[in-house]
Amino acid sequence: MSETSDLQSIWFSEQSETVNIIDQRHLPHRLVIEEIDDLQRMCTAIREMHLRGAPLIGVAAAYGMYLACRQAEGAGTADSLEAAAALLLATRPTAVNLAWAVERQLKALRIIDDPRQRIPRALTTARKIEGEDIDSCRRIGEHGVALIEEIHKAKVKTVNMLTHCNAGWLACVRHGTATAPIYEAHRRGIPLHVWVDETRPRNQGARLTAWELARAGVPHTVVVDNAGGHLMQHGRVDLVIVGSDRTTRTGDVANKIGTYLKALAALDNGIPFYVALPSSTIDWELRDGITEIPIEERNPREVGFVAGALKEGGEITEVGILPRNTPAANFAFDVTPSRLVTGLITERGICAATEQGIAALFS
Amino acid sequence: MSETSDLQSIWFSEQSETVNIIDQRHLPHRLVIEEIDDLQRMCTAIREMHLRGAPLIGVAAAYGMYLACRQAEGAGTADSLEAAAALLLATRPTAVNLAWAVERQLKALRIIDDPRQRIPRALTTARKIEGEDIDSCRRIGEHGVALIEEIHKAKVKTVNMLTHCNAGWLACVRHGTATAPIYEAHRRGIPLHVWVDETRPRNQGARLTAWELARAGVPHTVVVDNAGGHLMQHGRVDLVIVGSDRTTRTGDVANKIGTYLKALAALDNGIPFYVALPSSTIDWELRDGITEIPIEERNPREVGFVAGALKEGGEITEVGILPRNTPAANFAFDVTPSRLVTGLITERGICAATEQGIAALFS
Repeated sequence: MSETSDLQSIWFSEQSETVNIIDQRHLPHRLVIEEIDDLQRMCTAIREMHLRGAPLIGVAAAYGMYLACRQAEGAGTADSLEAAAALLLATRPTAVNLAWAVERQLKALRIIDDPRQRIPRALTTARKIEGEDIDSCRRIGEHGVALIEEIHKAKVKTVNMLTHCNAGWLACVRHGTATAPIYEAHRRGIPLHVWVDETRPRNQGARLTAWELARAGVPHTVVVDNAGGHLMQHGRVDLVIVGSDRTTRTGDVANKIGTYLKALAALDNGIPFYVALPSSTIDWELRDGITEIPIEERNPREVGFVAGALKEGGEITEVGILPRNTPAANFAFDVTPSRLVTGLITERGICAATEQGIAALFS
Repeated sequence: MSETSDLQSIWFSEQSETVNIIDQRHLPHRLVIEEIDDLQRMCTAIREMHLRGAPLIGVAAAYGMYLACRQAEGAGTADSLEAAAALLLATRPTAVNLAWAVERQLKALRIIDDPRQRIPRALTTARKIEGEDIDSCRRIGEHGVALIEEIHKAKVKTVNMLTHCNAGWLACVRHGTATAPIYEAHRRGIPLHVWVDETRPRNQGARLTAWELARAGVPHTVVVDNAGGHLMQHGRVDLVIVGSDRTTRTGDVANKIGTYLKALAALDNGIPFYVALPSSTIDWELRDGITEIPIEERNPREVGFVAGALKEGGEITEVGILPRNTPAANFAFDVTPSRLVTGLITERGICAATEQGIAALFS
């Protein structure tokens, strides 16, 4: 698999000893790198969505624990580590990777008696989680590309895909989840075209996925979130792949708000609907996604104001699109029941979105 | 039924002998009245969506034919009338009311021998169509309110409704179609709350429906188009009512892009999904909405740029939300198959969305 980008969404700089991230709020208009050197800034970056995407916020939280060790006197007491973990856990509620990565750091750090070893161990663990994410996404691409190849062989024409939000390398570290099979198919020379859902309210599709695909040279067209059903009715979508922020052991998928609507339309039109995910997004505790997965409700301001570049000059600004004092609500995710999911593309292969299917790969 | 607004979306001014419209592009930020005194300006107003909404563009086209008579030497020849009709028909393809209103004017005018009578006849016909639309919408409200009353009686709490786009009085002349039952229920004191879909790309829900509901004092909350499925999954929607731009004789409904997705979610969650329409939107020629209704594809610029008010000062400006040179597609409508429609609310009553149901009311 080729590198899909010369950049990563997050990396540790040996030189400056900082965690560097792409501040995604400025994309696609400006590529801004943020250097993070303490826990509080990392919490802000996660909460305020300088970075986002379930796998990436897991990696970022792991680095957050490293920064916490570094800041704490004597590299941290048990109490200070738990306090740092609590701060990170409170940043965003829906993606399970965050809790998973923090818990993994705590486990690794709790058993260390010599405080001097805590900082290097925390860094090693964070880099390990980062490396595993890259590896998982690469494997997701290798497994998922088979679906695209199959359609291409049957159709012998451009394969039209649709994705919602950004489950690209900007949501992970490299490759992405939903985009990994796309990048791998593109590398193999399969003619592809991707319909990119805008993904209101924060426009991660229009801003981030379109930016990623353009950098990689993958043909794509942005559509509003309302358009997918129409495209599917008219045979203009062959395959849907989306990401996941949390997946129950039974195959229900919490992903960006609006995913459920696309899954319904895919089913209604007989179009395969796949979810690409590293197993770190699986919450083994949960059986019923709709009642059990907490859905983050974000600031309604994200609905009422749209950020973009002014026509002239390119300065980024916000415009208000609602009548003054109009109430808005801002649910960040919805849950797609497993019955609407054709299959899950994981680092261990493709399986049915069922308890049995998942257990067979991850027993 | 009370007046839902002190304004109409269109009216003929005796004094200035102009057709006045609300230029809806400036709402909700400014209330701008445009005086139209020739055919070309009316064509521009329809094509560029100074006004929109299937019933309203029918009324506007009827007034356009009147303006055409007034401009033509000798109040128009058969050829000049046909030419004016062709110009109007070319403005927008999906709503059938436009063709219906133009054809009705042509029929009324073709039989007039004395050219001096053409201008007053064209004005009379336009005002008749305007009056009929007001009357139809009033009746839609009276029939549709029964659905809301029924839910209120069963639930004895606030009735939560969801609507997509603007099928309010701004899309008609007064009352609206989907909003007519809402306004009537509000007048009768039934506690109501309306989820207003933003309705990208032109945000008619966020801009127009929210503005209308606020003026009428109806509680409402704007959500992004992605949110409706989540709300329905969690029991937060009791009833969906939308409008229609064209309805087949079999009950398929072309309406604003994204309507189909909400209909799928309503079915999946057992929520009644009604379409409110004056019979002028029924295309008696068509049987299969998905293959037969032409779907307008508008300028992709509407996807890539969002208009709103700058935070300070309130000046209206546009911001670009896509990476430079990103392709976008802009389908204006989709078709909801009749199997997803619980019923049609028409000026003659409520019927099943079937050929038999429609024929029983309009035989």
